[in-house]
Amino acid sequence: MTSTHQQQAEATIEADPAVPAIHITRDFAATASQLVMAHTDPELFVRWIGPNGYVTTIDHWDGRTGGSYRYEHAGQGFHGCFHHVSDDRLVQTFTWEGMPEGVSLDTMTFEDLGDGRTRMHATSLVGSFEARDGMLSSGMDVGIRDGYAKLDALLADGALG
Amino acid sequence: MTSTHQQQAEATIEADPAVPAIHITRDFAATASQLVMAHTDPELFVRWIGPNGYVTTIDHWDGRTGGSYRYEHAGQGFHGCFHHVSDDRLVQTFTWEGMPEGVSLDTMTFEDLGDGRTRMHATSLVGSFEARDGMLSSGMDVGIRDGYAKLDALLADGALG
Repeated sequence: MTSTHQQQAEATIEADPAVPAIHITRDFAATASQLVMAHTDPELFVRWIGPNGYVTTIDHWDGRTGGSYRYEHAGQGFHGCFHHVSDDRLVQTFTWEGMPEGVSLDTMTFEDLGDGRTRMHATSLVGSFEARDGMLSSGMDVGIRDGYAKLDALLADGALG
Repeated sequence: MTSTHQQQAEATIEADPAVPAIHITRDFAATASQLVMAHTDPELFVRWIGPNGYVTTIDHWDGRTGGSYRYEHAGQGFHGCFHHVSDDRLVQTFTWEGMPEGVSLDTMTFEDLGDGRTRMHATSLVGSFEARDGMLSSGMDVGIRDGYAKLDALLADGALG
C-alpha cells in the first residue's frame, strides 16, 4: 500500500474532445508553491525542462505576472509572457520559434492531494485542431515525461526547499 | 463608387464554427503600423478603447513584445501581457478582472487593401464555447463599434501621424 503512495503517477497527456487544447495531469511529491517555483524560477527551470540530454540556457526571464521569458534548448528558441503567476495558478503564453506564428495559452492549476503531494493540471490551448494534433504527434510526450522525472529528482534532492 | 471607398465598413463580429474563438474584421483608413500603434501606445489607446462616455486610465503599460498592461475603464480593471508586437502582427492576453480566471489570447493581423487602407483581422481565443458565447452575449459589440468609430476619428484628425 505504501509503495502506491510513494510512486509518482506518470503524466497523462490527452486531447480535449471539444476545444483545441491538450490536458496534462501529473502528481508530484511537492506543494503547489514548489511547482509554481519550478516553472517560474529560471535557475530551477533549466534543471528539469525538456527531454534528457540537452542543456537549457536562459536568454531573459522575469517570472512574475506581466513578465516574460526566452530560453534555448537543443538549439531551439522558446519564448512567451507570464499573464498570471500566483501560488495556485499560472497562466502564460508559449511559442516554439521554429513555428513563430504558433502560440499556445498555457494554464496550470494545482490540486492538494494531502501528504505533501499535489496534482498539477496543465492545459495548452491553441487556435486550431490541426495545430493541436500537430503538437501531439511531435513527440512532445518524451520531453514532458523526461522533464517531470527530472523535476521529481530535484524535489527528492531538496532543491526546491 | 468613390463613396464606397471613403466609407469604412462596420466591424463584423463572428463566432468561429469550430473553435471557441471570436473573429472581428474591420477596415480602417490607416496603415498596419498605425493600427499597431493604436493598440500599443497607451496615450493613443485610452482615446479610443471601449464604449462612448467612459474615461480609460492606464495603471501600467509596456507595449512591447514581453511587456504587459493594466488599465481601468468604467470602474473595471483589465490586464494582460504582450506576447508579440510587430508591424504586422500583435498577440496579447486579456483578462477582465470581473472574471479573473477568464483569459483570452488575442491575435491581430493586418491586410493591406491599398490606398492607405488596412483590414484588421482580430481573433480572441478562449478555453470553452461557454465562455466564448458569454462574451458574445455580454454587449461587447457596443464597445467594439464605439471604440473603432473613435479610432476612425483619431485617424481622420491625424492623431496617429
